Parts: sequence; structure tokens; C-alpha cells
Amino acid sequence: MATSTDPPKSPTDPSSLTAEEKHHLITRNLQEVLGDDTLRKILPERNISIYWGTATTGKPHIAYFVCIAKISDFLKAGCAVTVLLADLHGYLDNLKAPWELLAHRVKYYEFIIKSMLESIGVPLEKLKFVRGTDYQLSREYTLDVYKMTSVVSQHDAKKAGAEVVKQVKFPLLSGLLYPGLQALDEEYLKVDAQFGGEDQRKIFTFAEKYLPRLRYKKRIHFMNP
Amino acid sequence: MATSTDPPKSPTDPSSLTAEEKHHLITRNLQEVLGDDTLRKILPERNISIYWGTATTGKPHIAYFVCIAKISDFLKAGCAVTVLLADLHGYLDNLKAPWELLAHRVKYYEFIIKSMLESIGVPLEKLKFVRGTDYQLSREYTLDVYKMTSVVSQHDAKKAGAEVVKQVKFPLLSGLLYPGLQALDEEYLKVDAQFGGEDQRKIFTFAEKYLPRLRYKKRIHFMNP
Repeated sequence: MATSTDPPKSPTDPSSLTAEEKHHLITRNLQEVLGDDTLRKILPERNISIYWGTATTGKPHIAYFVCIAKISDFLKAGCAVTVLLADLHGYLDNLKAPWELLAHRVKYYEFIIKSMLESIGVPLEKLKFVRGTDYQLSREYTLDVYKMTSVVSQHDAKKAGAEVVKQVKFPLLSGLLYPGLQALDEEYLKVDAQFGGEDQRKIFTFAEKYLPRLRYKKRIHFMNP
Repeated sequence: MATSTDPPKSPTDPSSLTAEEKHHLITRNLQEVLGDDTLRKILPERNISIYWGTATTGKPHIAYFVCIAKISDFLKAGCAVTVLLADLHGYLDNLKAPWELLAHRVKYYEFIIKSMLESIGVPLEKLKFVRGTDYQLSREYTLDVYKMTSVVSQHDAKKAGAEVVKQVKFPLLSGLLYPGLQALDEEYLKVDAQFGGEDQRKIFTFAEKYLPRLRYKKRIHFMNP
């Protein structure tokens, strides 16, 4: 509760919001929420943390702004938001691009995303950027990737990636690994929830099924239309 | 050439063998050799290095002795032989086994293999044991695994493992990774050749096709009947 000794608050200060107001901000305009019961359980106690991943391939698309608008809601609701700049995926997408170029591209993405959020007046204190290669080549993560491949069937991996992996005559092996990696990212980024487009739905339900098989907890999933 | 000042040599001292004699020892009783031209090119200049991999699952089988007999030929011919104790594969084969047990099992395998070779009087100076986890969870190797999955089709990976991966209704994702790992092991163990049973043939031809795609050189392959 605000008292006379509290510092003055801006109208959007998240700490002045009730759990119900935060819930409204977090979920408004979403197509779907998986795990709303968990969300409602956490919010009265503390703010939640969310990750959004984007592969650093080519230039950010204009459709980015739809995601950015939603991330703005998350930040306004007091959430900690981690943007995963998936440079390993970017690298694998085009093996000819040198790491140096990819490092520049990561900086470029970070700059663009921050600028977009600043342009709509969003507080950035709780926004964090992480590069995939910061942890995805570590011993611990790598062992978990192998563990994941030892409990996931080829059938389930293929099904999970059906909407986001390019469907070609001879699909690459990497396409079957991505759903497992994306699930593990939730654990390694230590978040409560992952956010993405509705095209990520099968990846998200895959993560909900398989993280517990590695004794990690199932996360909440937010989907944009 | 032996001179009067040379130390006395046992009849099996490899340095007293001609390239032709070494070639005979290395290839006798094999079902098939892939890359014999390369072998014949190297032998007049230097001895070759060979790796043989075995997953540390359960107890060594009696069929082991057939492989051991061939490894004995390699050592007698002056080859450097690396035995890869594939503990990561052993771990993934049974996630319930603790690492501590696996570490003991690796020691046990090493002891059994050495004892078998000693029992038939083979010199062990050029025999080396390496555990898979000594390098297979490193950053460099892991990046190469991801690169491999970005050039290998699901179709080729499945075909390569057809004879050695358990064929079940819902095969695990890990089965598609193994051929690529086994190819990379040739590079990371810095050997000239890999040795295995004829059941490894598709894995070996897969390695010959894909290592050069990662700019590594194609290796020689020796197959037991």
C-alpha cells in the first residue's frame, strides 16, 4: 500500500498494480495462455520472468513490432523479460557467415529491440539480453541436450517442429533438435514463462511434455495471435 | 635396416617389418577395407593410428575377443591404437545409471581389454584409452555436432544408423545423432582409420561422406567379418 513516505510513482509503476491488474496486462491481446492457473498462483506473491527468443538471421522483420508491443505489456506489468538472441541458430542457418558478422548482428538486434521499446516509452530496467552461445555450448547444457534426445522420439520431435521448421523433401537433422533446445532454454534462462507466436504452439506443448522428463518444471506459455 | 649396434629385437618388433608386411598384418582376416590406396600411401612413410569405439554398457561380450585379436594385429604392425570407451553413449543408454557407476565401468572395460591383450602377449605401449566425455562435451566438439546436424539430412542419418540402432516403432532422436558423433570422433581422436564390425559399414560410409563437408579429411575404414 502507498503511504505518504513512499516516493512519488508514475501512473505505470508496476508496484502500484494489483495482481489482477498485472494479470490483465500480461495476458491482454494474447491468442492463448497455457498455464494460467500457475500464473494466477504466482502473481499475488511476486512478479514473473518471461523469455522471448529470436534467431539472429537477416534483418528484424516489421512483424517484430507486434511482439515488441506485447513485451512492452510484460515490462509494464513488472515482469523480468529476457530476450534470447539465438546466435547459434543464426550460425547454423548459414554456416558461411563468420562469427564476427554474427556478433555484430547480435548487437544490431539488441539495439533495434531496445530502440523500439524506448520509442513507445517502456521502462527497460527489467529487460535483459542473452546470446545463445553464452550457455548453449556449455558442458552442462550439452549433456542435457543429449539426455533430451534420449527421451524424445523422432516422431515427437518432427511433429513439434512441423510449423516452424522449413518443410522440404530432405529436411535437415538440425530441425529435429530445435524443439528440445528451445525447451531447455526455459530451464537455463530460469524463467517462469516463454512467449512466442501461435506458430510456436507445438514447440511449447513439446516443452511442457518433455522438461518434466528431465526433472525440470513445466513452464507457462504465452502466445500472440 | 638392422645393424650390429641395434639392440636385439623380438621377432614381432614392428620396426623390423616392411610396409608390405605391415599391410598384411593390418588387413588380414578383415571383411573389407575402405581406403586401401590411402593406407598403402602412408605405410612406407610412417605407422598409422586407428580407433576402435565401444559403448560402456553392461559387460564386455565374449564376441569382444574377435575384435581384440584384430587389435592385436594392429599393435604388432606398429599402429597406435586408441580405444574409445564411449561412456556418454553408455550414460544415454540408461539414464538411471549414476556417473559414479559409469566411471567404474570405464575402468572395468579398460582392465578387461588390457588383460585380454596381455593374455595373448601383445605389446601395449602404443595402446591408449580415451573416455568419450573427455572431449565430447567440449565447446568445440559440440559446435561441430550442431554443424553436422546442419548439413546432414534426417534421411541420411536414419539410413546410416539402420543396422546398429535398435529398430523400434518410435525410435529415439539420439539414434539419428550417433552416426555424426562417430564421424567426428575420427577427427577429434586424430586417427588415420577407424575399425569396427561389418555392421558399422553404413556408419563408416556416412563418415566418409560427411567429414569432408565440415572440411575434415575422410578416414580409412577397417571392417571385421
